[in-house]
Amino acid sequence: MADADPRIDRLRLIRSANVGPITYRQLVARFGSATAALEALPHLAARGGGRAPVIASEDAVMREIARTERLAARYLFLDDADYPPLLAEIENAPPALILRGRLELVARPCVAMVGARNASAAACRFARQLAEALAGEGITVVSGLARGIDTAAHAGSLAGGTVGVIASGIDIAFPPENAALQESVAERGLLVAEQPPGTEPRARHFPYRNRIIAGLSQGTVVVEAAPKSGSLITARLAAEAGREVMAVPGSPLDPRAQGCNLLIREGATLIQSAADVAEMLRPIDPRSVRSPSSRYAAEPVAEDAGEAERRRVTDLLSPVPVPVDELVRQSALPAAVVQIVLLELELAGRLERHAGGRASLAG
Amino acid sequence: MADADPRIDRLRLIRSANVGPITYRQLVARFGSATAALEALPHLAARGGGRAPVIASEDAVMREIARTERLAARYLFLDDADYPPLLAEIENAPPALILRGRLELVARPCVAMVGARNASAAACRFARQLAEALAGEGITVVSGLARGIDTAAHAGSLAGGTVGVIASGIDIAFPPENAALQESVAERGLLVAEQPPGTEPRARHFPYRNRIIAGLSQGTVVVEAAPKSGSLITARLAAEAGREVMAVPGSPLDPRAQGCNLLIREGATLIQSAADVAEMLRPIDPRSVRSPSSRYAAEPVAEDAGEAERRRVTDLLSPVPVPVDELVRQSALPAAVVQIVLLELELAGRLERHAGGRASLAG
Repeated sequence: MADADPRIDRLRLIRSANVGPITYRQLVARFGSATAALEALPHLAARGGGRAPVIASEDAVMREIARTERLAARYLFLDDADYPPLLAEIENAPPALILRGRLELVARPCVAMVGARNASAAACRFARQLAEALAGEGITVVSGLARGIDTAAHAGSLAGGTVGVIASGIDIAFPPENAALQESVAERGLLVAEQPPGTEPRARHFPYRNRIIAGLSQGTVVVEAAPKSGSLITARLAAEAGREVMAVPGSPLDPRAQGCNLLIREGATLIQSAADVAEMLRPIDPRSVRSPSSRYAAEPVAEDAGEAERRRVTDLLSPVPVPVDELVRQSALPAAVVQIVLLELELAGRLERHAGGRASLAG
Repeated sequence: MADADPRIDRLRLIRSANVGPITYRQLVARFGSATAALEALPHLAARGGGRAPVIASEDAVMREIARTERLAARYLFLDDADYPPLLAEIENAPPALILRGRLELVARPCVAMVGARNASAAACRFARQLAEALAGEGITVVSGLARGIDTAAHAGSLAGGTVGVIASGIDIAFPPENAALQESVAERGLLVAEQPPGTEPRARHFPYRNRIIAGLSQGTVVVEAAPKSGSLITARLAAEAGREVMAVPGSPLDPRAQGCNLLIREGATLIQSAADVAEMLRPIDPRSVRSPSSRYAAEPVAEDAGEAERRRVTDLLSPVPVPVDELVRQSALPAAVVQIVLLELELAGRLERHAGGRASLAG
C-alpha cells in the first residue's frame, strides 16, 4: 500500500519530531530515500544521546493527504520538476509544500513585498500601486497575507500575478479578516503553505514562512518596516540567500520609515517605482539552477562519527547559535563528520537549527 | 604706492575680464606674480586671437578695498596661510575671498547643508535640528543663505558654528528678507563672498557660490531637493571634489523627496541623524593638504605654443564643453602646451571654463 503512494514515507519523515528541512535533506542524501531514512531514525537518535523521535504514522499521513485533497490542494516536493528552483537553492528549502492555484506564477520573475502590519495609509496605497505595476509587467508579487503592506501587495497584484505564503495550514486564515483575500489568492493566484492542514499559526511558524517568501523571490522589497520587525528578518534572509534587498525610503521624521532607511544605509537598493524594482531582476539563468534530482545530493554526510568526534562537536555547542562553518573550523573535523553529529543531535531533540546556517543546543 | 599693498595687483588680475580662477592660478604659476601676469595679459590675449582684455584699474581696486574695509570685511587670498585647505584643493578655488566673522570656524570639520528653497515645513524643521545637533558636536555647518533649507541650516547652527556663502557682494542680501539672518551669520559665524562689494547676484553667480560651499566641506548633506535643482549641482560638485555626498530620504509619494532619493540610489549615503553625518567626517589629514606656497605651482604651464599647436587645440573645441584631458589626448600635445593655448583663448574671451575640468568655445 505505502509503496503505491511515494508521498507517504516522505510526509512521514517530514512530519516526524525533530526532523527539520536541513535534517530531512541530509537524511535522504545519506540513506537514498525517505523510507530508508525512517528505518534509521531510532538508531541515529540514540547515538545523538536521545530517545527515538516520535515518527509520524502512516495512518496520520494518509489522513493528512485525504484532507489536503478535499481542500482541492496538492503537494509539491523538493525533487519535483516544477518545485520553484530559486526556493530549492536555499539551505533549508521546505521538503514539501501544499499548494492551491497557479504554480506557473513562480516560473515568472518573482519579487517579495513585505512591510508593517500597521503601515500608514499612504504606504499601503504605495504598496498596492507598486504591486499592480509590477504584476502588470509580468513580475509575480510574493507576500505573506498579513495585515497592512502584505494585504495591499496581494490586492494590487491579484489580477496580474500574486503568491500568498502563509504560516498556518492551507485551510486556516490569519488574520481571520483576510479569509476572503486568501481565498481570492488561491483562486486567482497561488496559495502556499508548509504546515499540514488544520495547523493554527504559532510565533515560530512566521520565520519559516518568511524564508519561503524570500526564497521564492529574486528580491525582496520592504515598504515601511520598524527596526527589528519580521519584515527586516525577511530582508536579511533574502540577503543571506544572495537575493536583492530593496527598500522604500521615508522621512527620518516618520518612525515607520526607520527600518527601511536603515536597510538602505546598510546597502539595500532604494526603490521609488516599479521600474526601479524591475531593473534589479534578471531572467533566471538555467545554468545556475540545480537539477531536481541533485537537490538531495548537495551536502556530503559522513557514514559515521566516533564518540570522540561527537564529544568534540558537542563541547563547542551552547545555547547561543553558532555558524556550522565555525564548528567545522574550531573542531578541525571534516565538515561531513560535523554534519552527521549535528544530524544525530537534532534527531535526539538536543539541537536547534537557526537561519544563516547556525545551530545551538536546544533550550 | 601699489607695491606697498600686495593685494592691489592680485585684485586687479582677479577683477580683469576673462580671468577666471583657473586662469588666475595658471598665470601666477607661469609669471611668478600677479604683477608680472598683468603685464603679459595683452600679449597673451593677442596670441589667443582676441583684443586685450579690460584690465581692472588700480583706482578701481583701491576703491573696492576701501569699500570692503568700511564694511568691516577683509580679504583672504589663496596663498594665505589661513585659506581653508579643503577649498584650496578644488581646481577652481577662488583666488580671493571677502570675509566677515570667525574664520576659525572653517578649521573645524565642515559639512554643507543644502536643499530646496520651497522645502516643506517638516524638512525645514529637520534641517534646523540636524544643523543644531551637528554644530553642537563641533561640526561647522556651511550653507548658502537662500530661503528654505539654507535658512533653517543657518538658524540651527548660528550659536554653534555656521558659515554662510553668498553669491552677491558681502553687503548685499538675497533674498532681501534674509538680511537680518545674514548679519547674524557675519556677527556670530562666518560670512563669505567671492564677488566684490556691491555685486547684485546674477544666475551665473550661484554655481560659483555652490562650488565654494562644496569645496569648504568634507561632505554635503542634501535635504529635500528637486531633481535638476541647484542643490543637486552642489552635491555633484562635492562628489567631483572627492567629498562625501549625503542625502535625507523621503517618501516616493512626496515629489520634493525625489532628488534626494535619486542621489541615494546613485550612491549617496542615506542620512537620518547628526550621528549618521558625523560618522562620515574625518579629521583632516595634514599630509594630504598642499602648503599655501605651493598652491600656485601645481599646474605646469608651457612657456610658449606655436601656431600649429594653437590651431590643433582650437579645432578640437566647440560650443559643447569637453574635458581638458580629452583635448590633451586627442591633440597628442603635451598637457602644458594645451593649457597655454586654453589660457590664451580664455584671455582673448574665446573660451569658457566649466565644472569638472571642461572647456568650450565661448558662445
